[in-house]
Amino acid sequence: MKMKILILHGPNLNLLGEREPEIYGRVTLAEINRRLEETAAELGVELKIVQSNYEGALVEEVHRAAKECAGIVLNLAAYTHTSVALRDALAAVGIPGIEVHLSNIYAREDFRWRSLTAPVLMGQISGLGADGYLWALRALVKKLTTG
Amino acid sequence: MKMKILILHGPNLNLLGEREPEIYGRVTLAEINRRLEETAAELGVELKIVQSNYEGALVEEVHRAAKECAGIVLNLAAYTHTSVALRDALAAVGIPGIEVHLSNIYAREDFRWRSLTAPVLMGQISGLGADGYLWALRALVKKLTTG
Amino acid sequence: MKMKILILHGPNLNLLGEREPEIYGRVTLAEINRRLEETAAELGVELKIVQSNYEGALVEEVHRAAKECAGIVLNLAAYTHTSVALRDALAAVGIPGIEVHLSNIYAREDFRWRSLTAPVLMGQISGLGADGYLWALRALVKKLTTG
Amino acid sequence: MKMKILILHGPNLNLLGEREPEIYGRVTLAEINRRLEETAAELGVELKIVQSNYEGALVEEVHRAAKECAGIVLNLAAYTHTSVALRDALAAVGIPGIEVHLSNIYAREDFRWRSLTAPVLMGQISGLGADGYLWALRALVKKLTTG
Amino acid sequence: MKMKILILHGPNLNLLGEREPEIYGRVTLAEINRRLEETAAELGVELKIVQSNYEGALVEEVHRAAKECAGIVLNLAAYTHTSVALRDALAAVGIPGIEVHLSNIYAREDFRWRSLTAPVLMGQISGLGADGYLWALRALVKKLTTG
Amino acid sequence: MKMKILILHGPNLNLLGEREPEIYGRVTLAEINRRLEETAAELGVELKIVQSNYEGALVEEVHRAAKECAGIVLNLAAYTHTSVALRDALAAVGIPGIEVHLSNIYAREDFRWRSLTAPVLMGQISGLGADGYLWALRALVKKLTTG
Amino acid sequence: MKMKILILHGPNLNLLGEREPEIYGRVTLAEINRRLEETAAELGVELKIVQSNYEGALVEEVHRAAKECAGIVLNLAAYTHTSVALRDALAAVGIPGIEVHLSNIYAREDFRWRSLTAPVLMGQISGLGADGYLWALRALVKKLTTG
Amino acid sequence: MKMKILILHGPNLNLLGEREPEIYGRVTLAEINRRLEETAAELGVELKIVQSNYEGALVEEVHRAAKECAGIVLNLAAYTHTSVALRDALAAVGIPGIEVHLSNIYAREDFRWRSLTAPVLMGQISGLGADGYLWALRALVKKLTTG
Amino acid sequence: MKMKILILHGPNLNLLGEREPEIYGRVTLAEINRRLEETAAELGVELKIVQSNYEGALVEEVHRAAKECAGIVLNLAAYTHTSVALRDALAAVGIPGIEVHLSNIYAREDFRWRSLTAPVLMGQISGLGADGYLWALRALVKKLTTG
Amino acid sequence: MKMKILILHGPNLNLLGEREPEIYGRVTLAEINRRLEETAAELGVELKIVQSNYEGALVEEVHRAAKECAGIVLNLAAYTHTSVALRDALAAVGIPGIEVHLSNIYAREDFRWRSLTAPVLMGQISGLGADGYLWALRALVKKLTTG
Amino acid sequence: MKMKILILHGPNLNLLGEREPEIYGRVTLAEINRRLEETAAELGVELKIVQSNYEGALVEEVHRAAKECAGIVLNLAAYTHTSVALRDALAAVGIPGIEVHLSNIYAREDFRWRSLTAPVLMGQISGLGADGYLWALRALVKKLTTG
Amino acid sequence: MKMKILILHGPNLNLLGEREPEIYGRVTLAEINRRLEETAAELGVELKIVQSNYEGALVEEVHRAAKECAGIVLNLAAYTHTSVALRDALAAVGIPGIEVHLSNIYAREDFRWRSLTAPVLMGQISGLGADGYLWALRALVKKLTTG
Repeated sequence: MKMKILILHGPNLNLLGEREPEIYGRVTLAEINRRLEETAAELGVELKIVQSNYEGALVEEVHRAAKECAGIVLNLAAYTHTSVALRDALAAVGIPGIEVHLSNIYAREDFRWRSLTAPVLMGQISGLGADGYLWALRALVKKLTTG
Repeated sequence: MKMKILILHGPNLNLLGEREPEIYGRVTLAEINRRLEETAAELGVELKIVQSNYEGALVEEVHRAAKECAGIVLNLAAYTHTSVALRDALAAVGIPGIEVHLSNIYAREDFRWRSLTAPVLMGQISGLGADGYLWALRALVKKLTTG
Repeated sequence: MKMKILILHGPNLNLLGEREPEIYGRVTLAEINRRLEETAAELGVELKIVQSNYEGALVEEVHRAAKECAGIVLNLAAYTHTSVALRDALAAVGIPGIEVHLSNIYAREDFRWRSLTAPVLMGQISGLGADGYLWALRALVKKLTTG
Repeated sequence: MKMKILILHGPNLNLLGEREPEIYGRVTLAEINRRLEETAAELGVELKIVQSNYEGALVEEVHRAAKECAGIVLNLAAYTHTSVALRDALAAVGIPGIEVHLSNIYAREDFRWRSLTAPVLMGQISGLGADGYLWALRALVKKLTTG
Repeated sequence: MKMKILILHGPNLNLLGEREPEIYGRVTLAEINRRLEETAAELGVELKIVQSNYEGALVEEVHRAAKECAGIVLNLAAYTHTSVALRDALAAVGIPGIEVHLSNIYAREDFRWRSLTAPVLMGQISGLGADGYLWALRALVKKLTTG
Repeated sequence: MKMKILILHGPNLNLLGEREPEIYGRVTLAEINRRLEETAAELGVELKIVQSNYEGALVEEVHRAAKECAGIVLNLAAYTHTSVALRDALAAVGIPGIEVHLSNIYAREDFRWRSLTAPVLMGQISGLGADGYLWALRALVKKLTTG
Repeated sequence: MKMKILILHGPNLNLLGEREPEIYGRVTLAEINRRLEETAAELGVELKIVQSNYEGALVEEVHRAAKECAGIVLNLAAYTHTSVALRDALAAVGIPGIEVHLSNIYAREDFRWRSLTAPVLMGQISGLGADGYLWALRALVKKLTTG
Repeated sequence: MKMKILILHGPNLNLLGEREPEIYGRVTLAEINRRLEETAAELGVELKIVQSNYEGALVEEVHRAAKECAGIVLNLAAYTHTSVALRDALAAVGIPGIEVHLSNIYAREDFRWRSLTAPVLMGQISGLGADGYLWALRALVKKLTTG
Repeated sequence: MKMKILILHGPNLNLLGEREPEIYGRVTLAEINRRLEETAAELGVELKIVQSNYEGALVEEVHRAAKECAGIVLNLAAYTHTSVALRDALAAVGIPGIEVHLSNIYAREDFRWRSLTAPVLMGQISGLGADGYLWALRALVKKLTTG
Repeated sequence: MKMKILILHGPNLNLLGEREPEIYGRVTLAEINRRLEETAAELGVELKIVQSNYEGALVEEVHRAAKECAGIVLNLAAYTHTSVALRDALAAVGIPGIEVHLSNIYAREDFRWRSLTAPVLMGQISGLGADGYLWALRALVKKLTTG
Repeated sequence: MKMKILILHGPNLNLLGEREPEIYGRVTLAEINRRLEETAAELGVELKIVQSNYEGALVEEVHRAAKECAGIVLNLAAYTHTSVALRDALAAVGIPGIEVHLSNIYAREDFRWRSLTAPVLMGQISGLGADGYLWALRALVKKLTTG
Repeated sequence: MKMKILILHGPNLNLLGEREPEIYGRVTLAEINRRLEETAAELGVELKIVQSNYEGALVEEVHRAAKECAGIVLNLAAYTHTSVALRDALAAVGIPGIEVHLSNIYAREDFRWRSLTAPVLMGQISGLGADGYLWALRALVKKLTTG
């Protein structure tokens, strides 16, 4: 059976590629997901991909992941900076995860410099655009398979 | 076809008129909506009116508004001060909007002085009670029609 | 007719007993609820028990409680520290409530020292583990019946 | 006898329309005053219009207004953020007033986010350009006549 | 031999019931002590009850408790927020304790939100008035006897 | 020739006795000045009494005092908390002065706790109402005559 | 029977006149007390004079004053800036009091700018040296006798 | 026709040379103005020299300068640190200007480290005493003539 | 000719693998460099690898890179959080770069949460251990070759 | 006659050696005092050794020391960080003193980084355990005898 | 023998004219040095010109200057805001110096508003571009020769 | 073979005895080193003594010490307060060390109160002048030999 990885997209990411391309790039979420599937195929892992604008729904996906998945690649977008609930969810399930930010969060408003979730994850990749997801997936799978 | 405006009411506003009238006045949300419809009729615009207590639902209404509406009059209540997700949604869709607060937010607790959403909107009207919505609707329609 | 009390469990509490027992103890939420029902029976009150990971859903439970219940015992978990919407909901309905925290919030990260909801409630019990709910229920019922 | 309203313009507003139109728009103060008079005529109220660059002079206009006027529409510009004296004057006379800002003060430097005067007024309208004055005048007269 | 519990009352609590009943209630310290003795009798434990307005005396009671008592119920009042010495004493002796506050400390001045002592105790009960002591005693004895 | 003392009243003090008596008392400025003259007569000193709402005018009175007066009793009201210019004026002329506040500034908004001018004066009397001026005058004259 | 006033001297004031005369002046505490008795005789009031270096002892003097005295003149010295217990004691007994500081506290280290006790007293006199006590006594007696 | 430069002296500078020479030096304002005229003659430019203690008057001089002068050398003294109105005036007229401070503002109280006006000017010269004005005039004229 | 990439290792990284393996892992810098060379060979790029403990030397390497290299992978270690000089160097040369941190900087002391250099780079990878360098190199080369 | 040195031990130090040896070591206060006496004998000085948990008592020991002793070695423990009264006492008597901390205060909670008393003493020795007292005594005596 | 002046250029200034001309202008360091030599010739002084990117090297140049030079014109660039070592070096040698900044540091990021070195120098010139060096040299020489 | 101790002197300490004797005393670094050698001889240990003004050089000395020395006595001067790199170096090598400051750092500017390096060392001695080094050497050797 293949290792399963949760790809978790947070609020507003459904708009990707349509809005503010100067910040987030021109790639749509569908396109990112397609590339993720492609990379997953190459790596021999299965993906579960979820996007939600609801903090509560994202919390519950994290809970479910604890039972179904070996790891998470997640871009919690705005909730990265405001959600103690998601931090607690991630800490509670203790699943390995890598946080992705499309834009360079250090080059934006200062309330984006702090990540509430990163301290309970393995690490973070920011500023590499849509590719960031792919690198995160590769890095996560490598860690899960080779330690 | 008439210009369509989204009226977006945030958390707890369904209680309007029933609770804490010394802060929020005695007008119910239904009455505010009725007056808004009346004013909309006078101005020749169509309204879509939504109230939700869910941050995620409000984010998605903002997304939908980008396709259906010419502008937004919004009172995000508590989320005004805590939701980076709604700020990002409004910035992403870039739709013109005016923020309304029933009470004078400067005369209340200091965590209500900061608006996370106002910087990505046209402006804000606060302290004028239920009338604030009507003035905001008139002001928004005037801006949209005469620039 | 019996007095009815709302027991409101916030985000991630559905995981209780399964995760991070060194912080939250080994008792499951089902077990806490069973003990609460037992205590309620002893006290002659009826319980309505709700758990949700959604801030919006919790806000609406508070609204409903205003019509159905005499008081609330609530553990809003992460939302204790971030939700102005829940504070506003509790202030609006003005129902008597006691806040419970399983762990000693003062002995954890400093963003857990501030409670946004406590100022609009009767009081708070923290650090007593699952028993905290039972003491809170007893204290609330005593206040409601003897003033 | 007609109800009299004070229109109080603060420092640098005499330059309106000539300078920094990207922030303040292209309408001159004379033009704003003309539109205010037009609206006043429509509403059946009389205006007293004053502009001053002196904090002391503005304080004294507020004092005089307490004797002559039923309300104030005021744009104190820079003094909004620095003048405790004007706040004290407004609090002392207790006259109803609405604060206007041409630009969206939340979208500018952070020292403009705090208003010292708003807490002692009815409310604030910001970001609606010159029209903001007209909406404020209409809103103020409506409040004064219908409560 | 009965288990012995120290009840430690801090500064100004000797005035209880005589002063500021709107904050602290109308029950005197003698009455609270009587109720505590009653509850202790019911629980089969012995109490040592001390009140002092001296930080040094309270420190020394904590030291003595380490030798004589199984646990502490303490309301350090003002010293809760200012005494590193009492925090150090409690941490040093490592005796189980529960902190009580008659009023809801979160609903008062912000310098009362921080407890220096709570982090080195089991937990805290606040806002339940004089009953808070009784609940704390029950909770402490339950923990000491059943773990 | 009699020793001359400047009595300097700052912004809004011309309203004394007419407005907000719950904060400032019911005595008018004229009455305060009359009592000051009475006390001055008793003490054998001459007064120069000035009130201005203009920071610049107050600065210039301080400059003039350096040439004409032996000391200053001053209530700079709002400018106490905002005027570096008045602080610099007082420091520059180095004339002995005592600051008076009618109300207890520590019991009001926190921006009134800081006095920019007090550090360059002899001292401050606050919270004693209109009498504060008289005590300040007596204290100043005593210092000037007996050192 | 004569009105009785408590004169309360806080920590280190027993050293007055012997140490740091450049800050506190050359007058000893005995001399200040002698002058206070002289003034009291003139005013027809009786004094109770206490000095203590113990926060707890000062708290208890405040408690006693509530029963024996009509008012307090107090210089709590260092405890002015650190003692919530003394603030609570003064608020609890609600006795009229005036705070005295020998030196100009605004001209010293910034941790001396904040007074924890002043907000619950009538007012404060600072910077007038030993005379400050006498003015405070006169002002207090005047308030107590003429309101 | 000669290029005209505004020399703008702010509050308290009329006292120069008479007061606090250890901070500001012994040169009077008249002497500084004489040297400025001398330098202006050498540079072939005409000066308009104004000193005012009124923030409002300084604002209006800046407005007038926009019509009459090619640049400004200004020492706004205390208003440098407190006047948003002067910052707005300078930003509005957009005239080239250089700020002068006689003393080294970094070596004084920390509220003098921040300049509200410098960000909207060309630059600042501080700590060079009266000569600072002359260097600023030379530098400004050089910039205006050679770019 | 091959594209050349600078690999820049900051202070203390020469100790890698020898010290604090619980934070930084057990891989030596030589081993990281070997893997980087391997990856570079695979990607067809040439590496210049430099480690220095001197801020000045690192600044000069950045300067040289502007002339010789197409991009930088850099781990400035402690200087990430303290060096404005390195930020200025990177901003000045404007060369594309990706910042690497072996450990998850958000899970360490709070002075490590702020990166002075990230805002002037493309992005950051943290918490992935020695692999972070390899992912950064791959990501950088991908961006440089495909945009 | 021998030079006399005060050894002043603050709150909780009577517990030394019994409690929290991982922080404070296993040596008792009696043992420390014995070693101090030994060292004193070697140095030819006489010791007065006092421990108190009362801030007031420690203040008075400092006062007495001014008359009896040539210097102080003091470990004020928790009061180091909270007592302005002890700072004032030490500043008032002006006696040479060295502050000792058994543990490295910089490696503990941040409220222990600030010493209120160190600025008015000669210096501080921290982190050297019980030996710290001996080094402080030797250093103090050396300073007192050789300057 | 001619008076010798050290010209000290800090980190990244070797890139001047090549990089970010919109901030720093188009003049190279060589050109600035040429103009400085020209001005020095005119003024009859000799220059020693040093640029270094190493904080340690700059510290040592300051030390050497104490022996060889009469004054310093220095632009420490990034180290202005971070180097306590350079502040200590300048304070230690006590040599007269003027700080130059090419750009207006108040119009840039707020971490550039604070200068650690300015408080121990004569003054600062900022925002005048490369000319700033020349004015600083002229001003320094004038001070050194005429006092 | 003798135990070897590194003596590490930071920036500006080469100037000791020549500059600012009122802060640092009149002893030269050579003299301190001579006394250290004397004490080392007495203690039977060997010293390696290094002074550098370069942060990078000091980092590398710490690295070397890990291989050659049993402990470090270090005065990092200004770098104590700014160098995360030196903190990391000391933490990485984990060698026992004692920090020395000639002056009482608590009695100087507040940016000197924080030590970045002390938390990763054994302890700190400050304010004892040149003797501080000798006490530190004695204390370190005692710890290394007797634990």
